[in-house]
Amino acid sequence: MNSILIRNVQLDGKGTDVLIEGNRFKRIAPGIEPEGAKVVDGSGKAIVPPFYNTHTHAAMTLLRGYADDMELFSWLNDYIWPAEAKLTGDDIYVGTRLAALEMIRGGTVFFGDMYWHQPDAARAVEETGLRAALGLLYITGTDGEVLERNRHNNAALLEWNGGDSGRIQVVYGPHAVYTVSEPVLRQIAADARDGHRVHIHASETAREVRECIEAHGMSPIAWLDEVGLLGPHTILAHAVHLSDEDIDLIRERGCWIAHCPCSNFKLASGQFRYRRAVEIGGCRFTIGTDGCASNNNLSMLEEMKFAALSAKGESGDPTAGRDGDIFRAATRSGAEAFGIDAGLIEEGRLADAMLVDLDHPLLVPDYNLTANLVYAADSSVIDTVICDGRILMEHRKIDGEEEIIADARRVCAKIRAL
Amino acid sequence: MNSILIRNVQLDGKGTDVLIEGNRFKRIAPGIEPEGAKVVDGSGKAIVPPFYNTHTHAAMTLLRGYADDMELFSWLNDYIWPAEAKLTGDDIYVGTRLAALEMIRGGTVFFGDMYWHQPDAARAVEETGLRAALGLLYITGTDGEVLERNRHNNAALLEWNGGDSGRIQVVYGPHAVYTVSEPVLRQIAADARDGHRVHIHASETAREVRECIEAHGMSPIAWLDEVGLLGPHTILAHAVHLSDEDIDLIRERGCWIAHCPCSNFKLASGQFRYRRAVEIGGCRFTIGTDGCASNNNLSMLEEMKFAALSAKGESGDPTAGRDGDIFRAATRSGAEAFGIDAGLIEEGRLADAMLVDLDHPLLVPDYNLTANLVYAADSSVIDTVICDGRILMEHRKIDGEEEIIADARRVCAKIRAL
Repeated sequence: MNSILIRNVQLDGKGTDVLIEGNRFKRIAPGIEPEGAKVVDGSGKAIVPPFYNTHTHAAMTLLRGYADDMELFSWLNDYIWPAEAKLTGDDIYVGTRLAALEMIRGGTVFFGDMYWHQPDAARAVEETGLRAALGLLYITGTDGEVLERNRHNNAALLEWNGGDSGRIQVVYGPHAVYTVSEPVLRQIAADARDGHRVHIHASETAREVRECIEAHGMSPIAWLDEVGLLGPHTILAHAVHLSDEDIDLIRERGCWIAHCPCSNFKLASGQFRYRRAVEIGGCRFTIGTDGCASNNNLSMLEEMKFAALSAKGESGDPTAGRDGDIFRAATRSGAEAFGIDAGLIEEGRLADAMLVDLDHPLLVPDYNLTANLVYAADSSVIDTVICDGRILMEHRKIDGEEEIIADARRVCAKIRAL
Repeated sequence: MNSILIRNVQLDGKGTDVLIEGNRFKRIAPGIEPEGAKVVDGSGKAIVPPFYNTHTHAAMTLLRGYADDMELFSWLNDYIWPAEAKLTGDDIYVGTRLAALEMIRGGTVFFGDMYWHQPDAARAVEETGLRAALGLLYITGTDGEVLERNRHNNAALLEWNGGDSGRIQVVYGPHAVYTVSEPVLRQIAADARDGHRVHIHASETAREVRECIEAHGMSPIAWLDEVGLLGPHTILAHAVHLSDEDIDLIRERGCWIAHCPCSNFKLASGQFRYRRAVEIGGCRFTIGTDGCASNNNLSMLEEMKFAALSAKGESGDPTAGRDGDIFRAATRSGAEAFGIDAGLIEEGRLADAMLVDLDHPLLVPDYNLTANLVYAADSSVIDTVICDGRILMEHRKIDGEEEIIADARRVCAKIRAL
């Protein structure tokens, strides 16, 4: 059985050893004997939970910097959609591998994904060793029926559910209330009733809310409840434009919010009501980066800082968006939202972890490691990343990096030539 | 004479060689012969202007993570001021060196500083090879006179003006309109009339504006004009709460704004009216990180992203805060505001530059390097940093790093024991 011993590492401010067997933390105590385990020197490092990115479109990393600073309509119509229409399944595989490279460097071990050609994304996830929840994408045409393209990919994606010892999870991914017809939303609610997860964009823009009220006489959150889609296994991406009643409904149903502050700012979608929804309203929340076309990276470290600072800015209260709450959202809450028994460094949990370099200037002084990770750190502090008991990056080295970059450049040359 | 040849480096998308002689770019063209110059391999890298951080309190890096998520009043009274009161000149030297380490790793070659014990900061600047504009600090007591502590340090700081071939510049640094008496502000205006730079906090909080109107019947910007302190050599830090009249006055007088979005968000001071002040109002602006107690880092890369995204968020317009404008503010405008003939990679300019790693996943794809630097990059893309013709970091190695970290830990242990 795969076995790793991390020696002399700091955990919650104390030195210890950490033994991983298979894909779980077996024992955490000082002075563990290696007994054949691969030994990782943890001195000068702290072991902390890695990140769970609950909302992204990983392969959009191929579109990083392709079109910025534009009105939403021309951005989508003139750039993003024409480029996406040309992307093949192999391109999505390449783009997801590029995203995985960046995620691993940034300490992310899981991503909740929603995009085209998902079986090709699954191939990439399998190879890179990450965890992912890949969404069965549903968009309906003018006839109210699911696009043929979705039906084809969704059927193939289902084969991957539970793949790689559970690292790959297939969830329902209806795009949004404005792109999926009522009968299809109701069917998904019926199919998901036994506890399947549903990941959907919700109340991202003021226009979406206005049009939903015009069409259905209620907000997108109320409409999702009406069709039966709000529950403890629902992940609502963005959730920017929430009324007080929406907030109550989200809390009562036990839904998770995937808060994506960078994207919301970059597209000028609006500011999430963090203080009202989370600190007063009691909604459960996680952190997502959204895709690289609207961010333009997959950095959970940066997203945490944006989440904390935008909470203070939006509320006018510097005590809003506390570092500990934000860090928990980016780590264990993200894992919990997708039913992954990880996000804490403790015996028995799935062995997901990262080692950060305590001698890096961004982590000095060390009054408060959580504050340093939320407010000060960038990916250069991350030394080693472990997912499901497997080392994905050791001392900043990732296997196959050059090949992934070369493949990505080939696909990008095609996009550039459009 | 010191001579460096950077070979096969990308400049504006084309391969070239760059020859530095002394502290200036001598020649930029392909195929330059080394002739005794130290050769730096630039293949796979781009040469770009480094950053000029126009508002910070460098030694406050010693207080990173010391007190976060607090009300301004208790943050200052219970944590920051008591800690600062214990800091000696040697502590400031150590803290400024720690800040320099972080700045160099982050591609920053200049900082506009305002803090206590400035001669000790000057010692640190001299040793680390950075550029700095150190402020003659003025705070007046209840008697309206400049604090004895300021007078003592300011006299010693003046000895450093023009030090190290001009890398060290001494400027006027009156703290703010609410901490400096009218006679002292008028005296500084008179003394600075011949073109000396003035660096001052202005209109940072709503309270400052309200109290200035109560005391003087006008806004802080109008009051600074009244006492003669607004001009093309004035750097206004923060400038969050600006009326339309303030914006007109800042443009007409040709002042520079040092925009510090992270600090303004973290302290919930308010949101700078970027679209109105810069894009409509035509004010000149630069970027500052403020100190590490309210940020909590000195990353100009991160500050650029915050500046761009908060401009979009504040205005509701995704075309506000364009990447090229933000990058220029963080580089050549910062240099220009402090009269430094740098911030562009061109023959004859002072040789300040950084090399970024084009094979780093955060810079792939490469549709737009400026967009990648503003929206995607973190310090891990920065390979080499050059200031005034001297290499401060080469392939991510900085001389003396371990000693600086060890010294900082010693001072922080003292602060922790308070």
